[in-house]
Amino acid sequence: MTTSGIITLTTDFGESDPYVAMMKGVILSINPAARIVDITHQVPAGSIQKTGSIIKEAYKYFPAGTVHVGVVDPGVGGKRRPITVLTSNHFFIGPDNGLFSPIIETQGHTGIIHLKEKRYWMNKISSTFHGRDIFAPVAAHLSLGVNPFLLGEKIDNPIILVSPLPRKKNNDLVGEVIRVDHFGNLVTNITREHLSLFLKSKGLNIKIGSLILKKISTTYNDVPEGQPLALIGSSNLLEIAINMGRASNYLGREYGIGTKVIVRRHSAIIEL
Amino acid sequence: MTTSGIITLTTDFGESDPYVAMMKGVILSINPAARIVDITHQVPAGSIQKTGSIIKEAYKYFPAGTVHVGVVDPGVGGKRRPITVLTSNHFFIGPDNGLFSPIIETQGHTGIIHLKEKRYWMNKISSTFHGRDIFAPVAAHLSLGVNPFLLGEKIDNPIILVSPLPRKKNNDLVGEVIRVDHFGNLVTNITREHLSLFLKSKGLNIKIGSLILKKISTTYNDVPEGQPLALIGSSNLLEIAINMGRASNYLGREYGIGTKVIVRRHSAIIEL
Amino acid sequence: MTTSGIITLTTDFGESDPYVAMMKGVILSINPAARIVDITHQVPAGSIQKTGSIIKEAYKYFPAGTVHVGVVDPGVGGKRRPITVLTSNHFFIGPDNGLFSPIIETQGHTGIIHLKEKRYWMNKISSTFHGRDIFAPVAAHLSLGVNPFLLGEKIDNPIILVSPLPRKKNNDLVGEVIRVDHFGNLVTNITREHLSLFLKSKGLNIKIGSLILKKISTTYNDVPEGQPLALIGSSNLLEIAINMGRASNYLGREYGIGTKVIVRRHSAIIEL
Repeated sequence: MTTSGIITLTTDFGESDPYVAMMKGVILSINPAARIVDITHQVPAGSIQKTGSIIKEAYKYFPAGTVHVGVVDPGVGGKRRPITVLTSNHFFIGPDNGLFSPIIETQGHTGIIHLKEKRYWMNKISSTFHGRDIFAPVAAHLSLGVNPFLLGEKIDNPIILVSPLPRKKNNDLVGEVIRVDHFGNLVTNITREHLSLFLKSKGLNIKIGSLILKKISTTYNDVPEGQPLALIGSSNLLEIAINMGRASNYLGREYGIGTKVIVRRHSAIIEL
Repeated sequence: MTTSGIITLTTDFGESDPYVAMMKGVILSINPAARIVDITHQVPAGSIQKTGSIIKEAYKYFPAGTVHVGVVDPGVGGKRRPITVLTSNHFFIGPDNGLFSPIIETQGHTGIIHLKEKRYWMNKISSTFHGRDIFAPVAAHLSLGVNPFLLGEKIDNPIILVSPLPRKKNNDLVGEVIRVDHFGNLVTNITREHLSLFLKSKGLNIKIGSLILKKISTTYNDVPEGQPLALIGSSNLLEIAINMGRASNYLGREYGIGTKVIVRRHSAIIEL
Repeated sequence: MTTSGIITLTTDFGESDPYVAMMKGVILSINPAARIVDITHQVPAGSIQKTGSIIKEAYKYFPAGTVHVGVVDPGVGGKRRPITVLTSNHFFIGPDNGLFSPIIETQGHTGIIHLKEKRYWMNKISSTFHGRDIFAPVAAHLSLGVNPFLLGEKIDNPIILVSPLPRKKNNDLVGEVIRVDHFGNLVTNITREHLSLFLKSKGLNIKIGSLILKKISTTYNDVPEGQPLALIGSSNLLEIAINMGRASNYLGREYGIGTKVIVRRHSAIIEL
């Protein structure tokens, strides 16, 4: 796999401390031509699965051969291994704590390497910041074209955190909210494929809390301002939204991560 | 117009979702050498006019031939057109919802193009994220030097949102706060030119809420710490500030967007 | 000193205004190949010492010849001088208000230059935004290899703000919290060196508020989840943290900048 020279960063570091910049300094010290792109540094502290799912959504828009670093690493300095996951066209670097499960689950992998070769690391390794001392320098070396199999030993038992999948229950498909975006849109774990496999006809009901939606809209303004709707969002996931409003605070109720979303076939319409 | 290879991004996406990074991935996939600069992603959701006015303030500090993408796009997927606005030395890309009015009002334009040529877009176009699927790839192509007139059809009826201008009323010039900056400074729509045209002498009173200021200061520390002042800020707009404090919360009162600011000539000094 | 072509930015501007982007536009207009890295723009408004200490922590991870711009500048437009501080391998640019004291205190300097040569500035200089009008263009010229001694006149009396150092008091080393990071970790001014000089044996007590810690841990998960610990953090500073929690709000108490931290030798263990 040829490198694109691009490195993306996703962490729970926030933007007020110098931590992210330290990683960038380390990368540019090794590969002065690296192009670094922040995905986000605002993942809630310690949210391993959310980080993986954000990287999974974003990485495919980058050129093949891009290196993606994910650092949400509450076990730093302990026994968890530092790893690189290879897929057919991208590199992923971070702690072996389940972070890359969403990638491995959906894309498979062509090799997972336990990072062991210290000559690709910083000279001094702190016990609290492997993002700077291990992951950033390894990312820089990969972006320069270093053979990933030189970075350590192949392993086949990475930690996997199973993502909650929607399940069938009688006439219903029961999913849940997995992300509330900046606009208050409720992104669920129900994909376009789940929906089309589940639905025989086009008719359906979607229920979240006390709210029932009777169709899948195409755009936010398919309904009047302030009204709720369901649509397949830009990541191919079922999304509950309010035109010009925040679904996460609709009608004085709070909806968030874990809130159940039920899709019912037309033949068994839910009525309140 | 020669391209600078630079692309700026201004959106209401925030920084916690992967949306901005997706746009950057798309851009770098088409133009790996593009230099991408964030202006801000913290425009309040749906604030079309504010976005245009921020781009208007910032764009002129970039080299000629820079591409500026603005995405505050509540009408995405509906009938609003995707457009490119050309001025004598910069490119602007975004939805035709009035966003670029401040540019067109003050700079004019040398052509507005309704983006229609799908070969410059992503292969799949979602109905909810044209920032990623249309604007980002078009920006990348423009940054590579594609002739903008190949991107679609010229139009002459863009949506224009009229910015509130200060108005004369008897002896007063009545303007308003158009932006509260990070420091709590109240930036008004009264320019240095408005002031100098309006004022015959140098004497004046500036009134906001119950506060009266009797001169235009040069720097924030022309007054003691904690005291209010008026000055012409770095964008040539009249600004109300507190030395080492926040004018937006002065003396227990809240001042914000839309708050009236009255300038009165010396011959008719306001006294409380 | 050869330039790395990299420029870092640290300010109190936040990310919602176009101010940072204006600086980047100015830099790229002068040096289109400059690599710009944000350290942070979220320093609390006017926090001069905090800015210097953040730059001090981060700069050493960048290649030699990097230009570091710091703009926390409440005295802008007044008598304070614009300066460049040279060390043996980095350049620092900003206001002469004490901002670079932490660098000068720990690294010394090889020259401090009062910026006076207006041909390296913007054509028009506002009285409120020297970050854009003086520091950004000077940084761009330095990144192009301009001899720093051409930028103005050497001075030897920069403003120095003395950082609070831990002090010995009987059997105690008394330091204080100087930074609360994004994770709520309390970073103190007690370095690894202070500790090792102070401690004869390995036994010690660390006291903060009503909390007493009896050892220096290596990683956050050396203690059970929710439990407090002390460790030497990734910047070689003593840090008080909670495994998977926020030390800044431990047990309903608030700890923050200025909170005293007392290290006592083993021979005089503190017991509550």
